[in-house]
Amino acid sequence: MQKKTSLKDIAQVVGVSTALVSYVLNNKKENRISKEVAKRIRQVAKDLNYQPNQIAKSLKTSRTRTLGLIVADIANPFFATLARYIEDEADKHNYTVIFASSDENPDKCQKLITTLLNRQVDGLILAPPAGVESQVIDLQKKGIPLVLVDRYFPDIRTSYVALNNFQAMYTAVGHLAKAGYRRVGMITLDTDLFHITERTRGYLAALQDNHLTTRRSWLKSIGPSNLPADVARTLQAFTTGPQPIEAVLFASNVIAMAGLKAIKSLSVAVPNELAVVCFDETDAYGLFDTPLTYIRQPVQELGQLAVSVLLDTLAIPSQITQINLDGQLIGQASTQPVSILLPD
Amino acid sequence: MQKKTSLKDIAQVVGVSTALVSYVLNNKKENRISKEVAKRIRQVAKDLNYQPNQIAKSLKTSRTRTLGLIVADIANPFFATLARYIEDEADKHNYTVIFASSDENPDKCQKLITTLLNRQVDGLILAPPAGVESQVIDLQKKGIPLVLVDRYFPDIRTSYVALNNFQAMYTAVGHLAKAGYRRVGMITLDTDLFHITERTRGYLAALQDNHLTTRRSWLKSIGPSNLPADVARTLQAFTTGPQPIEAVLFASNVIAMAGLKAIKSLSVAVPNELAVVCFDETDAYGLFDTPLTYIRQPVQELGQLAVSVLLDTLAIPSQITQINLDGQLIGQASTQPVSILLPD
Repeated sequence: MQKKTSLKDIAQVVGVSTALVSYVLNNKKENRISKEVAKRIRQVAKDLNYQPNQIAKSLKTSRTRTLGLIVADIANPFFATLARYIEDEADKHNYTVIFASSDENPDKCQKLITTLLNRQVDGLILAPPAGVESQVIDLQKKGIPLVLVDRYFPDIRTSYVALNNFQAMYTAVGHLAKAGYRRVGMITLDTDLFHITERTRGYLAALQDNHLTTRRSWLKSIGPSNLPADVARTLQAFTTGPQPIEAVLFASNVIAMAGLKAIKSLSVAVPNELAVVCFDETDAYGLFDTPLTYIRQPVQELGQLAVSVLLDTLAIPSQITQINLDGQLIGQASTQPVSILLPD
Repeated sequence: MQKKTSLKDIAQVVGVSTALVSYVLNNKKENRISKEVAKRIRQVAKDLNYQPNQIAKSLKTSRTRTLGLIVADIANPFFATLARYIEDEADKHNYTVIFASSDENPDKCQKLITTLLNRQVDGLILAPPAGVESQVIDLQKKGIPLVLVDRYFPDIRTSYVALNNFQAMYTAVGHLAKAGYRRVGMITLDTDLFHITERTRGYLAALQDNHLTTRRSWLKSIGPSNLPADVARTLQAFTTGPQPIEAVLFASNVIAMAGLKAIKSLSVAVPNELAVVCFDETDAYGLFDTPLTYIRQPVQELGQLAVSVLLDTLAIPSQITQINLDGQLIGQASTQPVSILLPD
């Protein structure tokens, strides 16, 4: 790499002291300096491509203006979109974002946290995988500015920005009940993560409050190892047999994509044979035969608030901010009222 | 933030010199040091949560082990997946990645480059928007280690890793010709970016080499401002009129998603009324009625090679590496041979 322009280089060209160059380029008051000299210093700095050394600056201020972001998988459209909003919001405040994917793996998460802290990020935005409670507590003990996003641990008092997952699923089931569907199943992820278990809690509470039948076999949790095939098998079981379910909720975008593909290959008619509610918004839903009802997460607000809560924490380290945002149910033809369904 | 543990803190607890602590923790040879003392130093460092100060280290080595990545939009699935592979490959070499989205905007790109350089990234991986030739030349003049990915400028000698876009589209047209389609249209992006104009060149060359008719009206370039509606209008024009086209190529994943939605809403039968070739691989294609033929980019190899070429450049700054990877045509029912198409 070409040698970087130093303050000394500029000082030599202008014929002033290095201290004076530093004084001018650090935008201090220039009362005592001739305007011409200040202007000349700035011009020479520009001509020589002078770049202030952020690292040396950081050592003085102990700030790198860099935020660390750990998501489950940046290639998952939900996290890619979230990352985009986080990046945009950070940029507004002159921060850059280092990102990494934990793969829902606690060991990998710990390794990434260590790496990001070694890079001296000013703070962390973390969508924690299951089983990292001790890591979060450890970060708090060390006084690392931290905000959890998308997921959080109800037993640990941290700042977080998340969806009100209970309300989202509760609303979706209420919508199905109102449309006349009685036998309502759900396919969800097999995980202890609070944001997912809250969706289950919302489902069960809404069944009860709407006087719908609850059956253990209508709620199926699926692990990641063989997800598409397991989702397809579940849907086949849901839709055949003497008392098939009438409506299904997919509790995540990954489950929804697998479920929609299975519905296509099983040739199940939506909504006549099976009403469908998806989670998250994705471009892909537009290719499905029937316009789909889905729960829209406020991804932009999640990303923007995560950044602004973290920046608040940088200013006031003791401040804890906990935000639950409501989802929005977008009702479309896949949950058409039973009364107006066409006969098969 | 809690005060950080320093080498001095550890030295005081163990009762040795700071130099000795530094010597041990920097993993130098320990021939001359008692194993017990070394072990004790490591234990105390762990107990006190010692984190090596990466910034101070950087000042010594002039390396931050951070790479800058500028893509068009991290929320675009192609770039999200590419970023994932870049992140994984960087992590293997103990590098982290700062990312940012240029929105195909040269001014934003310049601003991001400046920001990333101020953050002292060791090098840049750039998927350049159109019109940033001077920025690339400027980076080269400054000796900033750089590799372009996905796109490059044929007139500027830089390292790059990209798809052989000419070959990809040439192969796709050849596949359509062999399947018996004669009137072949293409919808592409209205841009001067080389990787897109190469796709057009491949389309035109293949039409000629396969003795297919070329018509100006069968090649349509579409700008970003009103893309879905413009794609829909184009498809309507392509498929109606006295001599409708028989097959269409979508020259990017964004065009393909808009095109497939338009095909659905226009109720065009695929492949009977219109054969379809898409660009890129996406989960969403699985929701379309007909299994789709598409050009698969080797995204993993693109990401991995971008990192390894950049790391080579860090070691040998004068080295220029230019890699064009071949795409793969995945043939499916949307381009079934004309001879075996069922009558409408």
